[in-house]
Amino acid sequence: MVSEGEAFCPGHVTAFFEVREDPDPRKKGSRGAGLCLSLGVRTVARVRDDSRASIDVIVNGRRQRADVTRRVAEKILGDRSCEVKILSETSLPVSQGFGVSAAAAVSTALALDDALGAKIPRDELVAVAHETEVECGTGLGDVVPASIGGMDLRLKPGAPGYAEVRTFPVEAELLLAVIGAEMPTKTVLRDSKKVAAINRIGGALVDEFSENPTLERLFELGVRFAEGTGLADKRVLEVIRASRMFGRATMAMLGHSVVATGNRQQLATLYLKFGTLQRCEVDNRGARVL
Amino acid sequence: MVSEGEAFCPGHVTAFFEVREDPDPRKKGSRGAGLCLSLGVRTVARVRDDSRASIDVIVNGRRQRADVTRRVAEKILGDRSCEVKILSETSLPVSQGFGVSAAAAVSTALALDDALGAKIPRDELVAVAHETEVECGTGLGDVVPASIGGMDLRLKPGAPGYAEVRTFPVEAELLLAVIGAEMPTKTVLRDSKKVAAINRIGGALVDEFSENPTLERLFELGVRFAEGTGLADKRVLEVIRASRMFGRATMAMLGHSVVATGNRQQLATLYLKFGTLQRCEVDNRGARVL
Repeated sequence: MVSEGEAFCPGHVTAFFEVREDPDPRKKGSRGAGLCLSLGVRTVARVRDDSRASIDVIVNGRRQRADVTRRVAEKILGDRSCEVKILSETSLPVSQGFGVSAAAAVSTALALDDALGAKIPRDELVAVAHETEVECGTGLGDVVPASIGGMDLRLKPGAPGYAEVRTFPVEAELLLAVIGAEMPTKTVLRDSKKVAAINRIGGALVDEFSENPTLERLFELGVRFAEGTGLADKRVLEVIRASRMFGRATMAMLGHSVVATGNRQQLATLYLKFGTLQRCEVDNRGARVL
Repeated sequence: MVSEGEAFCPGHVTAFFEVREDPDPRKKGSRGAGLCLSLGVRTVARVRDDSRASIDVIVNGRRQRADVTRRVAEKILGDRSCEVKILSETSLPVSQGFGVSAAAAVSTALALDDALGAKIPRDELVAVAHETEVECGTGLGDVVPASIGGMDLRLKPGAPGYAEVRTFPVEAELLLAVIGAEMPTKTVLRDSKKVAAINRIGGALVDEFSENPTLERLFELGVRFAEGTGLADKRVLEVIRASRMFGRATMAMLGHSVVATGNRQQLATLYLKFGTLQRCEVDNRGARVL
């Protein structure tokens, strides 16, 4: 018997954050703030009962290692013996701060649960995705906000059950501009000096944002974070500053990329000098079975 | 001893083409016409003498199978025993008609020859790249024009020595818009009905273009090819037609994408409704060692 499930999870941009360590990956994570994107990952899980269990992960038509997605699928499957195909599609680039690994993990958990008819509680599916992202070192805080939608303020880190997240519906058109090479999250989080700078600045910004959590403030504090931590290189800073004439931009953490809102035509003309451009809205619905 | 070579090869968009079969991969290829892009692939080849020969291919920081690049490197190496790292960087997407595999192959051939100090004639390096693209089924006609630069009219197919190519320097700003899923060249060329339609229409267009090879004509005939062959889906046709108000667009063969020229701001606003956008110029210099 073949059964299928399908799910979508929005991409997610973090504007600023601090790392919170914990030996338990469900408690470990980040405090921070960001936005969910109407661009994200759409995943079909196709399951066939078979004595020889296997998991194939195919992203945009190509077979991939995709460790996070694969491990999430293994956990959801448990001791079932099935032939599983995970088919994910996304137009977002990886390692550019758009939360693609988190969106792949969440959409895989939801789609596979649906295909299996397992009816695992949604919070547990999201927790599995969070835990696996943390274990793989590919992200710390995208999973939970991406599952909810809107603009988020993450006051306590971790998976559902531990996290404290406030979300705010926001209507905004966004431009996403990729202006440099990929920035693997793992590489940045291994650098203890960078993490120290992130935590020194990020924690205070989370507190400051909680007093007045507006979209405008998110961008303003994001720029302070990008500048203060040294995560933004010269090119990113140049693009952020030039954006002020036409709107607001901040760096997508962690990527050589920016997210912006404002006069679309003028921002687009500016960004096309620097790199690749996409348009989207804020997703206020969060991850969902289709 | 460690030595390095570095090379760039422009991306290449084909507007229309016909397939020319031949058992010899240096004679097989396509007749057609297209444009070289100032975006392309930059490759560093790093070579260390070692008794254990190995080839690692790393694209945008990720280890890849990259069959075409790997086989080109094997051929250039011959019976030398070296540890080889091929590090390619590109901001162009794959399988969207921008000739990324060809640009990777050519830049690898040039960079590795330079690193080895092998001084293989340039035509032979380009021929190795063409032959390997054909063997791998990833392309038929991008290698030779990408090595030369400009706008091209390919009158006879194949590698240098067999190909007859006329090239024209063109000053134009281009927009590249990706509006759908990847379209692996291999999949299209395996479909005999599609190839029959391509050849029925493409051959005549090559002859027509040779009478008046201008940029305007390239776009005009490209649209006829996209429509007539059925390679363009509804979305691509919609985008091409909507572009007429602000300039000219045609489909990038073979991809769910278009290349356009005209009023940049207005075209950009249009394309951002559909997908991912990049700006570049025509590259009139062709592949080169850096």
